[in-house]
Amino acid sequence: MRISRYIIPTLKDDPSDAVIVSHRLMIRAGLIRKESAGMYVYLPSGLKVLRKIINIIKEEMDRSGALEFLMPELTSADLWKESGRWDTMGPEMFRIEDRNGMEYSLAPTHEEAFTAVVRSVISSYRDLPVNVYQINTKFRDEIRPRYGVIRSKEFIMKDAYSFDIDDEGLEKSYQTMRKTYRRIFERCGLETIPVEADTGSMGGSDSEEFMVASEVGEETLLLCGQCGYRANQEKAEYKITIQRNGAERSEDLEIVDTPGVKTIEDLVKFFNCPEEKFLKSMIYLADDDPVMAVVTGDREINELKLKNYLGANSIEIAPDAAVEKVTGAPVGFAGPVNDLKVKTVYDRSVREVVNGITGANKADKHYKGVNPGRDFTIKDEADITSAKGGDLCPLCGKPMYEKKGIEVGHIFKLGRKYTESMNVKVLDKKGKEITPIMGCYGIGVNRTMSAIVEQHNDERGIIWPQSVSPFDVHLIGIAKSESEISEADKIYHALINSGFDVLYDDRNVSPGFKFADADLIGIPLRLIVGKSYFKDGKIELKLRKSGETEHVEKGLLVERVRELIKIDN
Amino acid sequence: MRISRYIIPTLKDDPSDAVIVSHRLMIRAGLIRKESAGMYVYLPSGLKVLRKIINIIKEEMDRSGALEFLMPELTSADLWKESGRWDTMGPEMFRIEDRNGMEYSLAPTHEEAFTAVVRSVISSYRDLPVNVYQINTKFRDEIRPRYGVIRSKEFIMKDAYSFDIDDEGLEKSYQTMRKTYRRIFERCGLETIPVEADTGSMGGSDSEEFMVASEVGEETLLLCGQCGYRANQEKAEYKITIQRNGAERSEDLEIVDTPGVKTIEDLVKFFNCPEEKFLKSMIYLADDDPVMAVVTGDREINELKLKNYLGANSIEIAPDAAVEKVTGAPVGFAGPVNDLKVKTVYDRSVREVVNGITGANKADKHYKGVNPGRDFTIKDEADITSAKGGDLCPLCGKPMYEKKGIEVGHIFKLGRKYTESMNVKVLDKKGKEITPIMGCYGIGVNRTMSAIVEQHNDERGIIWPQSVSPFDVHLIGIAKSESEISEADKIYHALINSGFDVLYDDRNVSPGFKFADADLIGIPLRLIVGKSYFKDGKIELKLRKSGETEHVEKGLLVERVRELIKIDN
Repeated sequence: MRISRYIIPTLKDDPSDAVIVSHRLMIRAGLIRKESAGMYVYLPSGLKVLRKIINIIKEEMDRSGALEFLMPELTSADLWKESGRWDTMGPEMFRIEDRNGMEYSLAPTHEEAFTAVVRSVISSYRDLPVNVYQINTKFRDEIRPRYGVIRSKEFIMKDAYSFDIDDEGLEKSYQTMRKTYRRIFERCGLETIPVEADTGSMGGSDSEEFMVASEVGEETLLLCGQCGYRANQEKAEYKITIQRNGAERSEDLEIVDTPGVKTIEDLVKFFNCPEEKFLKSMIYLADDDPVMAVVTGDREINELKLKNYLGANSIEIAPDAAVEKVTGAPVGFAGPVNDLKVKTVYDRSVREVVNGITGANKADKHYKGVNPGRDFTIKDEADITSAKGGDLCPLCGKPMYEKKGIEVGHIFKLGRKYTESMNVKVLDKKGKEITPIMGCYGIGVNRTMSAIVEQHNDERGIIWPQSVSPFDVHLIGIAKSESEISEADKIYHALINSGFDVLYDDRNVSPGFKFADADLIGIPLRLIVGKSYFKDGKIELKLRKSGETEHVEKGLLVERVRELIKIDN
Repeated sequence: MRISRYIIPTLKDDPSDAVIVSHRLMIRAGLIRKESAGMYVYLPSGLKVLRKIINIIKEEMDRSGALEFLMPELTSADLWKESGRWDTMGPEMFRIEDRNGMEYSLAPTHEEAFTAVVRSVISSYRDLPVNVYQINTKFRDEIRPRYGVIRSKEFIMKDAYSFDIDDEGLEKSYQTMRKTYRRIFERCGLETIPVEADTGSMGGSDSEEFMVASEVGEETLLLCGQCGYRANQEKAEYKITIQRNGAERSEDLEIVDTPGVKTIEDLVKFFNCPEEKFLKSMIYLADDDPVMAVVTGDREINELKLKNYLGANSIEIAPDAAVEKVTGAPVGFAGPVNDLKVKTVYDRSVREVVNGITGANKADKHYKGVNPGRDFTIKDEADITSAKGGDLCPLCGKPMYEKKGIEVGHIFKLGRKYTESMNVKVLDKKGKEITPIMGCYGIGVNRTMSAIVEQHNDERGIIWPQSVSPFDVHLIGIAKSESEISEADKIYHALINSGFDVLYDDRNVSPGFKFADADLIGIPLRLIVGKSYFKDGKIELKLRKSGETEHVEKGLLVERVRELIKIDN
């Protein structure tokens, strides 16, 4: 493709609204352009990269035996009502009504749609296992779209759903997808970190996310350098350090005036005490019932862990009125002393506190000298706090470290939530009706592209892995006379005729401008037909990544290019 | 692909809601399945066909030099407001608002989106011509979705938009697309009829639709067998037969009591006179102003022709109140006698009427003995009636015939409607700002698939053209013993290893069942490994279309298959 006939509008300056490197470079290299907040146009070279990623995904999914479908993007509300999710999906799901009064979701996911179609085509254990997938547009009403195509309102997903007879079958399907995902990301040149993830209230058991390390990642990962334990913070466990301050003598419980002292920070100052002495007590509504969660002041409550412990469908911080009703005091003075009449869940760390400080359930009052067992009873005890860097690995006990990550894929044992609610039945070998068990498997296609750019760039631009590069090679012609131009054109045609997909910079601009653009665009192999060629007949080959160059005779060019851009599939 | 591991749920019986053959066969052959009214799931083999059509379109568009983009499906209302269409697009356009109050259309077309992105990347005549396209999902709030995927609420379109400096450039771009479309449909095995189409109020000049003849087509075409004139009825012209009834003496104008006689049918009975004696007079609102249209009783008013003649943006039949205001009489008694004070457009046929009959603008009264010139004055005269079978060709004067058709493609000289309203400017050679001129070019991908099935089937099922067949060959194993099964499997693997995409019927069902399914599914080449193979080592090859069979030795099979399925690209 001649640049003079192409649309690849490179920009010298960073777009003002792009805070992360992939967003900046994808705009600057002419891959995407913003249409409106959270909405992007893929320009021709951007679409080529997207297509290459999609092809890799498709090839590997097909290789795994999965069958490709295409579902409507407008999915009927009837389907969502069958599963019960029409009422629970929340405001992130776009809903729309047509002129005939039919309701639809602009689907953010397709569990229901796939379950319905699979239900209509299977009847016997002989029809299973089956894994069905699509690569299609999805929609999410993001309140704050950001990071270019990493979090946008419209995006392309590969979503797959496996149906098996039993747990053993599901485990097999799940492991096949696990391998498939590794291959997909590997072929995309993407180094991913598979981490344990929360299975939530889906009733699932195993769940793994494929993360790409990135300083701007929205997810926090806990990693153990020793044994390899890796988990999303929402799910990560950690070992409690036994630190019972045995040396410290129990003091008497004492009530203290603390006017206007509410936050842990205020309390640390007021009492001149370390954070872990405080018993932070928060009131939640779990499926509308009040619950108090108590953790030490140095810890953050992990709402997902709390929700899972309670087996609740939803959890949210209680509004002020509910807090006042439970504690009899204004917000900011809750505490467990004297056992309030509300279900209370204690983090494992609370038991270790000696002479703690906590709210007195009275305005502007705190207790000090608080001791578990004596001053309150621990009945419900669980891990309800988030692990953080430095915490001990739950497997080997060595300290873990934190990393930020972008989630590009997710595999998940889904269980029977949809097959049960949507009444999917097949006959087993004995002719008995059974309910198949599902897994689901997603890849965010656009954010995979962003993640590749996050991982492959330098200060001059993108450095594409060959497998997803928009073109095979970038040919730069630095020709002045007509005859020189015609020489460069000949090499362009020779490369095309040999089957290469060539981006040919045939513009009448300075060499420096062309080189800067080539660095920005980031095609791994660059060929230069310039001075040296017109002198000694050798074409300069330059690798974008290492900067290594070599000079190759015209007659050997095609063969050498073929060697250099070989891609392992 | 082994059918035992595939999802291709063939049905013996026609679905009850399918009235046309393509809809019936696409459901029965397991290509698509209905999700809700006007919404279809593509099952794996259906998606394969769709992909083949998409690939042909993409290859030919790329070959023509067009550049592929991918636009958001949710297009910002701001874009539509720029062109002015936010207010004029009507109820067929889905509109949606996000949580931040941003408005979007679920785009039915992308003129604005493409114009905006092209505007942002072009600045000089050197950047033109450019033709940009996408193959993407579109949405239309169809009040009555029908005919399977021919008219549905969600569909895939290839839409392209050319931008040129001047009319000459546009003509070139238009002709390139014309050729490209012919190639695309030819490669899809589709016989299309290119017809002249209306250019409407778009300000365009040329417009051509690619039609597929079908008894259930929603469009009516007028065709001349003599000179090849072909036009959509909405646009088709015809020659008036000069038939001035010279022999008939003008009678006096006379008013007649016609209580309850309103329709042409009633009048024909009442007056015992042929239809063409009546002057049908209809009141319209053209951009809200009343207009009377007068045609002879044997003709239908063509509202599009009337609208174009008036240069109006919209036209609709006037509500009763407006009719009464204009005529001073109830609806049903309008007529031109004594020249009402309303703009009146006469069809060319009116001038020829002698002693006509028309409403008297009084309740239950008609005039007879009406003669143009004497009883009313023809000022605005135009062709405002639809041509019909038997009318004379506007070019050669021979009688035309009618055909029904499905529109699969449309090419259109769009003019400067969008580049002007959206302020697209480039500098010409002299450094002067000019406004580029556009063309637009659409192909309905799903209905192309339906149209192929409409054209290629028999009473037993589909007969795919090889270029879009879901698989290269259909291999039927009729094996009983383990060793026979293993022999059939070997042939399957041999074919796969030679690069063929094989549908392998390895099910444990009767041969008759397999053959019926193969006929229904319609892969053009069928191979049978059955009795004859196990006897004399020859595989039976059968062509789906002609039923011709031949027997080929195993060693020659791959070569023979390669010969038979060769596709011309």
